[in-house]
Amino acid sequence: MAERSDEVKLLGMWASPFSRRIEIALTLKGVPYDFSEQDITNKSPLLLQLNPVHKMIPVLVHNGKPISESLVILEYIDDTWQNNPILPQDPYERAMARFWAKFVDEQICVTAMKVVGKIGEEREAVVEATRDLLMFLEKELVQKDFLGGESFGFVDIVATLVAFWLMRTEEIVGVKVVPVEKFPKIHRWVKNLMEINVIKKCIPPEDEHLSYIRARMEKLKFKAP
Amino acid sequence: MAERSDEVKLLGMWASPFSRRIEIALTLKGVPYDFSEQDITNKSPLLLQLNPVHKMIPVLVHNGKPISESLVILEYIDDTWQNNPILPQDPYERAMARFWAKFVDEQICVTAMKVVGKIGEEREAVVEATRDLLMFLEKELVQKDFLGGESFGFVDIVATLVAFWLMRTEEIVGVKVVPVEKFPKIHRWVKNLMEINVIKKCIPPEDEHLSYIRARMEKLKFKAP
Repeated sequence: MAERSDEVKLLGMWASPFSRRIEIALTLKGVPYDFSEQDITNKSPLLLQLNPVHKMIPVLVHNGKPISESLVILEYIDDTWQNNPILPQDPYERAMARFWAKFVDEQICVTAMKVVGKIGEEREAVVEATRDLLMFLEKELVQKDFLGGESFGFVDIVATLVAFWLMRTEEIVGVKVVPVEKFPKIHRWVKNLMEINVIKKCIPPEDEHLSYIRARMEKLKFKAP
Repeated sequence: MAERSDEVKLLGMWASPFSRRIEIALTLKGVPYDFSEQDITNKSPLLLQLNPVHKMIPVLVHNGKPISESLVILEYIDDTWQNNPILPQDPYERAMARFWAKFVDEQICVTAMKVVGKIGEEREAVVEATRDLLMFLEKELVQKDFLGGESFGFVDIVATLVAFWLMRTEEIVGVKVVPVEKFPKIHRWVKNLMEINVIKKCIPPEDEHLSYIRARMEKLKFKAP
């Protein structure tokens, strides 16, 4: 648990799945924190000072010391507050968790971002590519309630971007990227997630989130050649 | 230390800085291993079976269980054999080590790869971009012998790709990407690395390495439009 003297601040942005990961982890650990909402289109001097390398949220500031990159922050939280472990204890299971978390960020997220950014035939190709990647998660979920195994963990926190960002964008994009017939396990997993109090508390409210994503997409379309 | 019953096998490739990272870590820990040289242009059924997601080296197989992604493997090695720690013990220092390792792979490596792949004005731009990124490492090395601090650690192992791949390619590319006048600390760090027995033992021999990189570049040129 957090000590009384701990000062924990999160520079984040309400609609960002990366920022929400950190809120989930801190809530799971029972660590109180101040949340500082950041305007990602007009970066604050504080953000630029605390994350001079990437200039991006989320940044966790613990007793004055800043940490950036959401996967790095999650590991830091788990190393610092050891109650309610996020990563498995067994070295091989830890490695598997790190492997899949990296896969979600470097493969699924990078490809899925393009579903929003492309149209027409190009979009069809990235939808297919995203599905091919998601099939690895679908297989991971056979006989498992969570990506972390029997209970919710590191990979689940990281993959909330599939459940509460990618699957929400479907309505706006007008394409079922993750159809239930093809991905029954992923859909069951999203239901399991929604039964967890920490998740219910820490995901962005659906209507506002959809409005926000819709507005961002409109901007992207204006920018397209 | 490794137990007698441990079976450790590395599927790697002699000229790959990613594969060499794992050899450095295993050697540092005193873990004996079998090395299986892989042809990355004609992937073996064993590699495809052990790393079905990325189909890439390195893959560590410990008592029959495969792990891929070099950063994930390094953490696994450190979690499994706890002598001669690779990552710092302090949570904040661990986070900083993870941050910089990720930075080397996702920023420096990705950009530096293009120095080899591009020519003319495009190359000049990526050389400049690579230098901008390296300047962060240069600053990290002020008053430090190693990126890990007083002693050699995780970030140093990861950043050997700067010392023994990027800086070696300079001779072939014909551009000083890391000039000593601009990066005196990085050059001092490379000297410090070369005083470590594990490093001397685990880096690819310079002449063969240069011939290999030269041949790879020739192939790239043939493929260029």
